[in-house]
Amino acid sequence: MTQGIKIVTIGGGSSYTPELVEGFIKRYHELPVRELWLVDIEAGKEKLEIVGSLAKRMIEKAGLPIDVHLTLDRRAALKDADYVTTQFRVGLLDARAKDERIPLSHGVLGQETNGPGGLFKGLRTIPVILDIVKDMKELCPDAWLINFTNPAGMVTEAVLRYTDHKKIVGLCNVPIGIEMGVAKLLNVDHSRIRIDFAGLNHMVFGLDVYLDGVSVKDKVINLLSNPENSSFVKNIKGQGWEPEFIRALNVLTCPYHMYYYKKDEMLQKELKNFKDGTTRAEVVQKLEAELFELYKDPNLAIKPPQLEERGGAYYSDAAVRLISSIYNDKRDIQPVNTINNGAIASIPYKSAVEVSCVITKEGPKPIINGDLPVAVRGLVQQIKSFERVAAEAAVTGNYDTALLAMVINPLVPSDKVGKAILDEMLEAHKEYLPKFFQKVEA
Amino acid sequence: MTQGIKIVTIGGGSSYTPELVEGFIKRYHELPVRELWLVDIEAGKEKLEIVGSLAKRMIEKAGLPIDVHLTLDRRAALKDADYVTTQFRVGLLDARAKDERIPLSHGVLGQETNGPGGLFKGLRTIPVILDIVKDMKELCPDAWLINFTNPAGMVTEAVLRYTDHKKIVGLCNVPIGIEMGVAKLLNVDHSRIRIDFAGLNHMVFGLDVYLDGVSVKDKVINLLSNPENSSFVKNIKGQGWEPEFIRALNVLTCPYHMYYYKKDEMLQKELKNFKDGTTRAEVVQKLEAELFELYKDPNLAIKPPQLEERGGAYYSDAAVRLISSIYNDKRDIQPVNTINNGAIASIPYKSAVEVSCVITKEGPKPIINGDLPVAVRGLVQQIKSFERVAAEAAVTGNYDTALLAMVINPLVPSDKVGKAILDEMLEAHKEYLPKFFQKVEA
Amino acid sequence: MTQGIKIVTIGGGSSYTPELVEGFIKRYHELPVRELWLVDIEAGKEKLEIVGSLAKRMIEKAGLPIDVHLTLDRRAALKDADYVTTQFRVGLLDARAKDERIPLSHGVLGQETNGPGGLFKGLRTIPVILDIVKDMKELCPDAWLINFTNPAGMVTEAVLRYTDHKKIVGLCNVPIGIEMGVAKLLNVDHSRIRIDFAGLNHMVFGLDVYLDGVSVKDKVINLLSNPENSSFVKNIKGQGWEPEFIRALNVLTCPYHMYYYKKDEMLQKELKNFKDGTTRAEVVQKLEAELFELYKDPNLAIKPPQLEERGGAYYSDAAVRLISSIYNDKRDIQPVNTINNGAIASIPYKSAVEVSCVITKEGPKPIINGDLPVAVRGLVQQIKSFERVAAEAAVTGNYDTALLAMVINPLVPSDKVGKAILDEMLEAHKEYLPKFFQKVEA
Amino acid sequence: MTQGIKIVTIGGGSSYTPELVEGFIKRYHELPVRELWLVDIEAGKEKLEIVGSLAKRMIEKAGLPIDVHLTLDRRAALKDADYVTTQFRVGLLDARAKDERIPLSHGVLGQETNGPGGLFKGLRTIPVILDIVKDMKELCPDAWLINFTNPAGMVTEAVLRYTDHKKIVGLCNVPIGIEMGVAKLLNVDHSRIRIDFAGLNHMVFGLDVYLDGVSVKDKVINLLSNPENSSFVKNIKGQGWEPEFIRALNVLTCPYHMYYYKKDEMLQKELKNFKDGTTRAEVVQKLEAELFELYKDPNLAIKPPQLEERGGAYYSDAAVRLISSIYNDKRDIQPVNTINNGAIASIPYKSAVEVSCVITKEGPKPIINGDLPVAVRGLVQQIKSFERVAAEAAVTGNYDTALLAMVINPLVPSDKVGKAILDEMLEAHKEYLPKFFQKVEA
Ligand SMILES: [Mn+2]
Ligand SMILES: [Mn+2]
Ligand SMILES: [Mn+2]
Ligand SMILES: [Mn+2]
Repeated sequence: MTQGIKIVTIGGGSSYTPELVEGFIKRYHELPVRELWLVDIEAGKEKLEIVGSLAKRMIEKAGLPIDVHLTLDRRAALKDADYVTTQFRVGLLDARAKDERIPLSHGVLGQETNGPGGLFKGLRTIPVILDIVKDMKELCPDAWLINFTNPAGMVTEAVLRYTDHKKIVGLCNVPIGIEMGVAKLLNVDHSRIRIDFAGLNHMVFGLDVYLDGVSVKDKVINLLSNPENSSFVKNIKGQGWEPEFIRALNVLTCPYHMYYYKKDEMLQKELKNFKDGTTRAEVVQKLEAELFELYKDPNLAIKPPQLEERGGAYYSDAAVRLISSIYNDKRDIQPVNTINNGAIASIPYKSAVEVSCVITKEGPKPIINGDLPVAVRGLVQQIKSFERVAAEAAVTGNYDTALLAMVINPLVPSDKVGKAILDEMLEAHKEYLPKFFQKVEA
Repeated sequence: MTQGIKIVTIGGGSSYTPELVEGFIKRYHELPVRELWLVDIEAGKEKLEIVGSLAKRMIEKAGLPIDVHLTLDRRAALKDADYVTTQFRVGLLDARAKDERIPLSHGVLGQETNGPGGLFKGLRTIPVILDIVKDMKELCPDAWLINFTNPAGMVTEAVLRYTDHKKIVGLCNVPIGIEMGVAKLLNVDHSRIRIDFAGLNHMVFGLDVYLDGVSVKDKVINLLSNPENSSFVKNIKGQGWEPEFIRALNVLTCPYHMYYYKKDEMLQKELKNFKDGTTRAEVVQKLEAELFELYKDPNLAIKPPQLEERGGAYYSDAAVRLISSIYNDKRDIQPVNTINNGAIASIPYKSAVEVSCVITKEGPKPIINGDLPVAVRGLVQQIKSFERVAAEAAVTGNYDTALLAMVINPLVPSDKVGKAILDEMLEAHKEYLPKFFQKVEA
Repeated sequence: MTQGIKIVTIGGGSSYTPELVEGFIKRYHELPVRELWLVDIEAGKEKLEIVGSLAKRMIEKAGLPIDVHLTLDRRAALKDADYVTTQFRVGLLDARAKDERIPLSHGVLGQETNGPGGLFKGLRTIPVILDIVKDMKELCPDAWLINFTNPAGMVTEAVLRYTDHKKIVGLCNVPIGIEMGVAKLLNVDHSRIRIDFAGLNHMVFGLDVYLDGVSVKDKVINLLSNPENSSFVKNIKGQGWEPEFIRALNVLTCPYHMYYYKKDEMLQKELKNFKDGTTRAEVVQKLEAELFELYKDPNLAIKPPQLEERGGAYYSDAAVRLISSIYNDKRDIQPVNTINNGAIASIPYKSAVEVSCVITKEGPKPIINGDLPVAVRGLVQQIKSFERVAAEAAVTGNYDTALLAMVINPLVPSDKVGKAILDEMLEAHKEYLPKFFQKVEA
Repeated sequence: MTQGIKIVTIGGGSSYTPELVEGFIKRYHELPVRELWLVDIEAGKEKLEIVGSLAKRMIEKAGLPIDVHLTLDRRAALKDADYVTTQFRVGLLDARAKDERIPLSHGVLGQETNGPGGLFKGLRTIPVILDIVKDMKELCPDAWLINFTNPAGMVTEAVLRYTDHKKIVGLCNVPIGIEMGVAKLLNVDHSRIRIDFAGLNHMVFGLDVYLDGVSVKDKVINLLSNPENSSFVKNIKGQGWEPEFIRALNVLTCPYHMYYYKKDEMLQKELKNFKDGTTRAEVVQKLEAELFELYKDPNLAIKPPQLEERGGAYYSDAAVRLISSIYNDKRDIQPVNTINNGAIASIPYKSAVEVSCVITKEGPKPIINGDLPVAVRGLVQQIKSFERVAAEAAVTGNYDTALLAMVINPLVPSDKVGKAILDEMLEAHKEYLPKFFQKVEA
């Protein structure tokens, strides 16, 4: 291998890429990236050109010797890679719009990660990820796969169960967002806050929270029972928990918990968006269009501040922080998706969990904090069952299994409704679901 | 101890008692009952007299030397008992009507065992059961407690966690009803059918089903995917499963699963009943009134056939069968609620489960059939979490814990709605919830 | 399939066969055997003829329509079999003599099942068993394999881990021997005694013991603390437990426990036998020679009583009882070796355990009795580790793995001594260990 | 609380104290100790004076404002302590000599931590530790107990099971010794080596070993299979592992493993020492006498280099490092004894384990590395069973339980020999075992 690190970013034409590039620039002193390969598919070629040019300008401005490569040839990019990040969206935002709108048309939350929408996102994404892993086994078997692509929990579960590539980490900005939110609540610097995270992706809890190492959980829970403070992430801001409920729960929740503990209110809100044409996908489509207009400006050589509104705040920063900790064997603590191995007793031993880990050169190692509270084990188990059945459906292309995943999802109110949604979504996403349709055609 | 067996039935004035008496008469040859004590409270005195007189006439007609005692003095009855059965309803059917109607008034299924209604039934019942157990430890420490009282799973969980009386069995007629239903489906005698039951009370699955010892699961699942055949118990007859769903689930369901896998349809149906004044409690109130009219007839000396419409078919038969198997160390297989001890890997080791057991003189011993299918583990875990938190609330009288139980219930759509239901129900059941109100008064 | 049952007995020339035949005759009314195929290898041809002729005379005398077939063609025999029993000894008693004498020559107990001798018995036997299973998958995939061949625990573990044939039961006469012993101690009929067995083969404990369903454990433990009563099986009669020790252990032991809890005394005794040429193998060789002389008598048409001294008392009876319970879906309780599935919490979920099971037409289902006492978990785990590593060595033929199995065995005092024994035994059994030597030759 | 940290060292008159003091001096910049209380009992008064005076001279020489207090009043010392370290020996080295010599007189290894000697050390020590914890709950409930006193695993287990004081860490120098040894083997600085430790105290394994974060396990195992390199700790230097054995074991061992995997050789060596009067206790008695002669020198104001021969190398350094990481919430990785909570799947969830932990201000949190290799689970479980039964005996003073602990120890060859050793040791240590003798006297 030549000097320096080779990074491959699949879905490199994503609007998030400038943040990632900014991350590499900021950490260049500890993470000497030599090559950054931005990979995309034919349909994303134009975006790749736009964002790739911006990336090159940013690096040039920073005066760093990082070579940026833009390519549609994934296998060429993967050859001898050190770290592969994935941030693609099969079917782009149009598919997300369907993931959200079709369930809503049946009066059901789409929830594009752990809900019916997430099921379809998984069905489209998992086969592609498994394909990437297959290429990696051949072209860069020692590389780490850092997966940002949602549903990150289901994707990590699928890679753990259906491949023998162990070097995968699933990454999400929700935990870091909670830390940031707590820091803001307490009016202290983020670096002074540490949280024991445990659960699943978008179903993660903060079992304890520390300020300078001393537990401040009671104080934080108390602050959280104030409706003003209940949500940490902008795009699904809620109305606040019932104080007695959050006090009895006695752990920090994540924003996605509102889909389960405030299902009705969330549904009403999203039905309104559905009617107004302002579902999240639709909002994001506009945001993205604006972002790419900005990116085109040949004078722009920094990450534009508007990107922060996109919703993926800290995402790429989290990724670069993770890669640097692996590369440098930092042994610091970061919350990531990895194999459970007993970290959470009530989750199957070999399943993916989202949990605070020590990040070493050999990857993340979960830290033990005891089991989840009894009260949340049921919901967590339910999402884990959903993830496992959904992953199986994605791998097999089996209709019955897909229906089963749909119906056991806690947002879906009945087998009949679930089947109606499933059938409509299968049809809508047909071109991205070859496993489900090739058999019919054969 | 003198000759023969002493049975104590708490809630002896129940309309079910004639069935129980019939069971003792039928099995007298193998279960020589000497004394049957029917115990009730002051408010149930009249019913106790009516049903007790019928019981005496039935036994006289059968020509058996069983002494029937009617009493309001529970402690006197418990002295030296061999088997104690419980079939009482704290607050009677009026309370059940509230358990069903208050949640429905908020657009939520009440579900009087595993839903918000079941939570309140548990909050009223568990302290009474724990009191009975306390008396038993003093007056008949070697007696078996056979608990019919719903929510039987939650009650069994509470006794296992909060007492050191290990001789408890929770009993339900749902599994035997499923067996009967399968026998009817296959048009064979019940004795030729065996089912491997595993799960929780009213959340039990048939993992496999055998005809003369040979698995016929595929055939039965296939028959069940026919809408005509989907429900085995009269009082919550549904519309049938989506065939692909039940095929993918690949286990036998119980009728109560419709509350979770057909939530919408069940809710619509019950909202209609709510409006019409024909919720189950209201129907049963009428049935009971008619039954007691029948029971008063001094010429009646058998269990009247109308009792079967009451919904507790096989209940008392199941109880007498269980007592006989314990008494005779029969080592036959019966599905009961008992301590898990690893029978179901994904349920906590020390929790109550409903599972096929070998019934020995030392009580039920679970048979291992492997873990639950992945797809159902989540829902089962969720009900178990609910049962545990609800049992804790019943024991502590803590408002926050009760709210937590309410909100984590899969039928409850949000913390806000849950709180509204909780507050209204606490007020409605105030007189039966001393643990929650004594503190306020103090 | 034609009418009646087809039984195949591999190792049919064994001196135990007449007992097996007697079992089939006694139970013919409930187990209508049509064909009994006795299979052996070329080296056992003469014995097969002798014992086969006796079998035919026994069946003729009983007037039963069972066809006895003698053959060296295993595959012909297996075709369409219903039950396959295995009772062979790779290398015959000469090999057993080496299993015992070589370790003793190094001052170490050979213990032909769980000790260094058992390791080598496993290394010779497991490949043959896996070969039989391979044939069964092809020729009689629905047949049950009833394995008597020692080390039965290790063999069952190997079949469970290294094949996908689930219809295997490992069988041992030790538990039934303990029941018989307890019945004798208490001077009651065997049918009135039931024991909750749990552990591993030759490492099984009686967690509780019942007379007519009522626990008499305390009484039995007390009787067992009398040195006169301590051992139930003739061939390894010991000197009795220290009363305080057995009282604190508080479970029934099996005779093989003396190798671990009385290692020194057992070693002294066996070293004497070693010197005198009276190790068990040598004694048995004489017994067998005498038995075959008896068997040759053309007037003999019953199982000769001298067979009982051979040490396998109840073995064949246990086998026929087991086959009949499977065939008739009896659902009675029998202790057998089968997959754990959580029956014993401290043993891996998918490992073989010896445990009381309900015997159904679909095979044995373990009954749960809670975990093993803390005090015995260590030793049980140690034997399980030994079994697993030994099975791996048998399958791979890896020298290092075989050495590891040897050294972690609790009877082996050091890596150096273990290596010396291993090397000498590998050489001595060379012709029966092709997996270990083919590579060297290649 | 006033400024700075209050440390209490129970057994302050120990010869190790100067090392501890040196540690506090070295780390004063990050660990501002204000008060160091050295506590001992009447019998240790003279040593306390000697070592305390040296401590004062060392601190004075370092020019630090640490107040050293010498006292026999434990409760006065504990008041408002921040960290309590324990390094006492009930019965002093005379007791250790008996722990070693009595078993040897029966031909059995004494092994003063995990063997029969360790059992008695535990029986003497645990009641004293539980007493200290009781005082701490009253006088300094938020203080950390850092226990050096052997058998550290058994002591930690006892505190976890029999008290509700969760702030305990058991500490041993063996893991750090292995790290130092590996560093030396590889000729690199200690700071570049990290090992994933997992197991029990004095029964710990290195599951993987890293140089600068990259696994070098294969290389190290290979080096270890060279007899020259096999042992890392001076005082039980062995002869080296059989290369094939250590390769198949495929984990790093600790020096104490020689007692189990080289039992014979260790026994021969110790029997020779027994005869020569050179058992470890006897050697240490001489060393200690010499050390105290040195300590008396009023001109000595440093830790004398001869202390390193005492065997506790790195012990006190490990302790100060641990205290500093807790105090400063360093989140670095250190191997300590703490509650398992699932870190090692095959060890009970609530038991003490010795495992690599992240050290936070709220204490150690185990890092997950997957389960122990199959081959070592048995021995580890056996020691854990021994520790648990021994701890129970220590708490109850029950003779039968003590005998059970003795007999299940892997070094003890039979119940008879175990009983003989037990009886002789109980008598020999009578004055330190009030729980066992008060009842007899009563
Ligand atoms: Mn995310
Ligand atoms: Mn029921
Ligand atoms: Mn056997
Ligand atoms: Mn140590």
